Amino acid sequence: MPSTNVDLTRGDFTLPGEAGYEQLTLRLAEKWGADTIRDSDGTQLSPEILESGKAIYSTVCLVRSVQPWARVNRDKLQQNFLMSFPVVAEKAKTTITLLDGFFTEQFAVNWRDSPKTWWQVFDRTTGEEVAKRKWVFNEKKGTVTIDGTTPGHRYTVNFLAFRIWEEISMYNHLTNDWGDREHLAAVDPMQPATQKVLLRFLDTWLREHPATKVVRFTSMFYNFSWFWGADRKTLRDVYSDWGDYAMTVSPRALRLFEKKYGYKLVSEDFVNGGLYNSTHNAPSRRYRDYMAFMHDFVIEFGRKCIELVHRYDKLAYVFYDDHWVGVEPSSPRFHEFGFDGLIKCVFNAFEVRLCAHSTGVKTRELRLHPYLFPTGLKGEPTFKEGGNPTLDAKNFWIDARRGIVRAPIDRIGLGGYLSLVEPFPDFQDYIEGLAKEFRLLKSFHAGDKPWTAPYKVAVLTAWGDLRAWTCSGHFTPGVPLYDVLESLAGLPLEVQFIDFDDLVANGVPKGVKTIVNCGRAGTAWSGGHYWSDPRVEAVLTQFVQKGGGFVGIAEPSALVQPGQCFKLARVLGLDRDGGERVANGKYKYAVAPSHFVTADAVSPLDLGKETDGIYVFGPDTTVLAERDGSPRLAVHPFGKGRAVYLSGFKFTHENTRLLHRAIAWSASQEATWGAWQSSNVKTEATCFPKAGKLVVINNAGTDESTVVTLADGKTAQKVKLPAHGIEILDI
Amino acid sequence: MPSTNVDLTRGDFTLPGEAGYEQLTLRLAEKWGADTIRDSDGTQLSPEILESGKAIYSTVCLVRSVQPWARVNRDKLQQNFLMSFPVVAEKAKTTITLLDGFFTEQFAVNWRDSPKTWWQVFDRTTGEEVAKRKWVFNEKKGTVTIDGTTPGHRYTVNFLAFRIWEEISMYNHLTNDWGDREHLAAVDPMQPATQKVLLRFLDTWLREHPATKVVRFTSMFYNFSWFWGADRKTLRDVYSDWGDYAMTVSPRALRLFEKKYGYKLVSEDFVNGGLYNSTHNAPSRRYRDYMAFMHDFVIEFGRKCIELVHRYDKLAYVFYDDHWVGVEPSSPRFHEFGFDGLIKCVFNAFEVRLCAHSTGVKTRELRLHPYLFPTGLKGEPTFKEGGNPTLDAKNFWIDARRGIVRAPIDRIGLGGYLSLVEPFPDFQDYIEGLAKEFRLLKSFHAGDKPWTAPYKVAVLTAWGDLRAWTCSGHFTPGVPLYDVLESLAGLPLEVQFIDFDDLVANGVPKGVKTIVNCGRAGTAWSGGHYWSDPRVEAVLTQFVQKGGGFVGIAEPSALVQPGQCFKLARVLGLDRDGGERVANGKYKYAVAPSHFVTADAVSPLDLGKETDGIYVFGPDTTVLAERDGSPRLAVHPFGKGRAVYLSGFKFTHENTRLLHRAIAWSASQEATWGAWQSSNVKTEATCFPKAGKLVVINNAGTDESTVVTLADGKTAQKVKLPAHGIEILDI
Repeated sequence: MPSTNVDLTRGDFTLPGEAGYEQLTLRLAEKWGADTIRDSDGTQLSPEILESGKAIYSTVCLVRSVQPWARVNRDKLQQNFLMSFPVVAEKAKTTITLLDGFFTEQFAVNWRDSPKTWWQVFDRTTGEEVAKRKWVFNEKKGTVTIDGTTPGHRYTVNFLAFRIWEEISMYNHLTNDWGDREHLAAVDPMQPATQKVLLRFLDTWLREHPATKVVRFTSMFYNFSWFWGADRKTLRDVYSDWGDYAMTVSPRALRLFEKKYGYKLVSEDFVNGGLYNSTHNAPSRRYRDYMAFMHDFVIEFGRKCIELVHRYDKLAYVFYDDHWVGVEPSSPRFHEFGFDGLIKCVFNAFEVRLCAHSTGVKTRELRLHPYLFPTGLKGEPTFKEGGNPTLDAKNFWIDARRGIVRAPIDRIGLGGYLSLVEPFPDFQDYIEGLAKEFRLLKSFHAGDKPWTAPYKVAVLTAWGDLRAWTCSGHFTPGVPLYDVLESLAGLPLEVQFIDFDDLVANGVPKGVKTIVNCGRAGTAWSGGHYWSDPRVEAVLTQFVQKGGGFVGIAEPSALVQPGQCFKLARVLGLDRDGGERVANGKYKYAVAPSHFVTADAVSPLDLGKETDGIYVFGPDTTVLAERDGSPRLAVHPFGKGRAVYLSGFKFTHENTRLLHRAIAWSASQEATWGAWQSSNVKTEATCFPKAGKLVVINNAGTDESTVVTLADGKTAQKVKLPAHGIEILDI
Repeated sequence: MPSTNVDLTRGDFTLPGEAGYEQLTLRLAEKWGADTIRDSDGTQLSPEILESGKAIYSTVCLVRSVQPWARVNRDKLQQNFLMSFPVVAEKAKTTITLLDGFFTEQFAVNWRDSPKTWWQVFDRTTGEEVAKRKWVFNEKKGTVTIDGTTPGHRYTVNFLAFRIWEEISMYNHLTNDWGDREHLAAVDPMQPATQKVLLRFLDTWLREHPATKVVRFTSMFYNFSWFWGADRKTLRDVYSDWGDYAMTVSPRALRLFEKKYGYKLVSEDFVNGGLYNSTHNAPSRRYRDYMAFMHDFVIEFGRKCIELVHRYDKLAYVFYDDHWVGVEPSSPRFHEFGFDGLIKCVFNAFEVRLCAHSTGVKTRELRLHPYLFPTGLKGEPTFKEGGNPTLDAKNFWIDARRGIVRAPIDRIGLGGYLSLVEPFPDFQDYIEGLAKEFRLLKSFHAGDKPWTAPYKVAVLTAWGDLRAWTCSGHFTPGVPLYDVLESLAGLPLEVQFIDFDDLVANGVPKGVKTIVNCGRAGTAWSGGHYWSDPRVEAVLTQFVQKGGGFVGIAEPSALVQPGQCFKLARVLGLDRDGGERVANGKYKYAVAPSHFVTADAVSPLDLGKETDGIYVFGPDTTVLAERDGSPRLAVHPFGKGRAVYLSGFKFTHENTRLLHRAIAWSASQEATWGAWQSSNVKTEATCFPKAGKLVVINNAGTDESTVVTLADGKTAQKVKLPAHGIEILDI
């Protein structure tokens, strides 16, 4: 580690304290330079720690903090719409048991708020709603009976259900076999009476925690959507989405929405044929209105809580975790909460970028992995016999570090049971070094920005900046935009996230030289129905005609029309045959042996799950790779601009380089290619111009050598790096 | 070959005569027992042959027979709508060169029939037609110029083009390098003046061919659709479809249509965004009306031609080939032509069944492969050095024979240049034996019907019986229904073909115990938009509820709705996730180790190109095979009935058995399983009850042994068969 003026040994580190292990807590706080000690959920820190001079950081989850109130106010619990599992009519009268297939320890039908007002019954065969006079409900039996059903048609009921067991309590309880421990329920702060109770609770809590410096909310009020099935072995998660606002709904919320927006939402706006409003699918405009409404509410009541914290001279941090819905750290309104800090648990570089991207907090902190638990997320040993937590930590660190090098982060920390690290002295040493490495990287960001290419890249999705640097929660296999984000997170590129409304209203943002659109047809990532606005096609086509770039991955701009699948097919020089072109001939191409885009590509190309049925229009399209007659990688000049198509994407070191080259070529930036480029794709170089430092990182678990090209794009510097290593050069 | 009362040595065989090889012609006619000698296209038979006592069979293609008339009546040539290749607007004025990308030796723009009346210009970005006042055409430049175009939008012109080179003439000319030989053009019999010219030509021709007994039409008037591209190396076939009526269109036809049907068709009804009306895609109701209109016309004028043939005391046969459009041998109106015979060239068993299925002719004849040409269809040697025509003949024969055993065929024949067989005496011997084998099988069909299972199977498609035993022309890889038909063609099952209108109007036909629906979403085979009629779902669901069966293959009943892909998902017990269910949990199943359906299945299962993303609903669905978490084969009881799902299908001997079992199980017919079943899947057994014969065929090129179960489903008979062999047992 080279010398620096910054004290690399202390600060910016949150350590999870553990009662009963006071000496260890204090020793490791010293070794790792922790300035803050956290009380883990369910542990109370001892006086020794509270009085150690470290800042104390305590967690609170408001909505499950007032159980006595929750126990007696069952009508004020959180609720949501559920769609009953489809029932096929056999006769003219059909009865549906509403909760059949759902976990009845989680849900109880809400019979109290007039079912005839809020519920809807659908004939899913015709797609039409069944008139309200044609069905009756039976609270005792838990059923709805429909009159005049057509035999052979499918019927479902959208109904309101209270959640009588809060999901995180439920998950921990069942995972850890907590037996007859109380089932916690989450109260709904949408109810004015509940708000009062919560504020009163918080006030008392703040008074009773004088040593606490940082109040960490987990998170605000509404959990991500998580509906459990009756049989946990075969179908635990009927529905689970990190970003769906399904679990915020209530008759009161819907009434307030109508008052504010001037139109009524119905159950089907939330149920959507059982797809609900998954973040992965392109959202309706009605649902976007509802999100804005709910975000507004969460800010409004959240701010009251935070103001209370501030009145006690404490800081309010928010953990971007389970109850995050409505918080939206990427929203331009996030600052209105008044939070002092944002904490993000990270597995990947894109999550680091997500945390760094949030505006409106002074402090951005990462919770690193591995968590101090005996086993990892898949049940593999970590801090126990057979585990290698040091290697785990190294591997997690090289993933997160790619993002930390590119974007400023203020603090790091660990979570879990500190006592577990006692038998692993090499882990203790590694974290000491890791913390120093973090502080050094942080120091480079101070007053400086890492060098990026002289052009901007925009990622176009239906969500735009609201879901910048994420799709929906942690990495999900099969959603190729995650892989793209993970590649982008470590590249020397300035990346913006734009949505279709931005594009139509304001055109392509200034400075953006190329646009990435990646995803399966219909998804929010590709854009789905947003492509039906012809202005989107016009703006983007003109952008490329005039010299811009477009990188399309999987099913970019997909919106099926007769004879056409990709709206930007002419820009891409190719389209997809979804099976309707059996009779249409396909242009016979030859695969080009070499190209700027594939100069560092390895063979065979691994692009994950790929889109098939691609066909090119003619000789203007250069195919760089193909399989079974379907191009996998192709480039196409269009007007004064250029397009690149990839049939899929998977995060690997090689593909990161491939994407980087595709972006540079599409942006017509071959001339600027090479500066601060590391020849070995397993390594990456970052230049901090003001600091005069060149950071070279090894993203692999093997020793690597590389040659870094300097600013002029020509002069080269050889660098050797140990496995997981870093090298800092003066430039 | 067992003894029989029938003379197996002569009759029912058409031999292609060749001028200059009179002795060979007569010798082989004797050896093969030919009763008919055909003059190949372009050859005149010598007097020796004409006077041999054999029936003479001559070919005529009316629409290209009157070149002097065609040369001077360019406005009476056949025509069609073309869609210009899309052009992306850069400015407010955009010019499109209509024939850019098309083969200008095939097409000439029809400027004569008011373009403003018949043509349409589309903004394909919005999907809207451009007002006629906004565009002008320029005959000299061959262009259309559009005013007020939006930069970045795509524009196309639908325009009428005459075909100045008849496609078969064009294909043969260019394939064989015929240099400056005349480009033949096809005249349009829709024009009354042309009808007169054609009838006059036919009258003269009939008078000038006194020796001809059979007039073989090739075929009637309109070729299957075949649009060639400008560059034959890279995109010869811009569009090619065996069943599309695109090349029948003309302003006169459209005016007559309007008069008869009371509404106007427009160019887009034919162009359909460049997809035209491919047989593979679910047809619109407007297009079905047009087909009926044109079928009516072809019958009306065709009948006049046939009546003329009959007036000369000759027979009229039709070759189900190039100019077949409007003939429709499977139509219930086909008999109205008054044809005496139908000839079908066959590669596969399903084509044999197609020929046998046609009603309204006395004689059904097969043209067998290999054709007597030096090379085969893929350029491989046949009747020349390196070829093995005998083995080719055996392999083609075992494919066709499966169908011949199951359905009555009256005649067989060969085509091509007879002289080519001279150096292949073993081929001459093999055809002698093959002809005897055919005559024997034919004799079993006389007054008898092969045994079939005691229930009927229906294949449900958008075309129904009109496209019975075919999809669109010869076998096309990637269209799994072809594979299904090829399997069905040799199975002891009574198969019906039904469409959605049949189903809604009349329900499932009597005797049908199970229904097969097979194809990709949107195709005519799966059904496409026909599934949007809720009555279809209701009828089929009730059918299965009450004890019927359903076999769904690939994307059966597919019609994407929110949260649902297959309309019969509840019947199948599974559905397809097209990518929209990332957040919806999937039921965890175990693969069942054994089942009636898979009792003879081989591992690994090869179902060709498969549908992925399948998920099952619950424990009622039994998964029998899966890949990457997606079921490939599953069974599901529903109500009193049963459903089977296969994610794809490929014709193999093993899969034929699998399909047979799936059908039997879905029809709840395990009890009738076993009768006349041959244990070895490479062999098949057929019982002719009245003849008291059991025909066992070897469908493989290897010697095989098998055990045939007799009528009682228990008693067994061992049979040994040589490669390609047949065994006839008395029972």
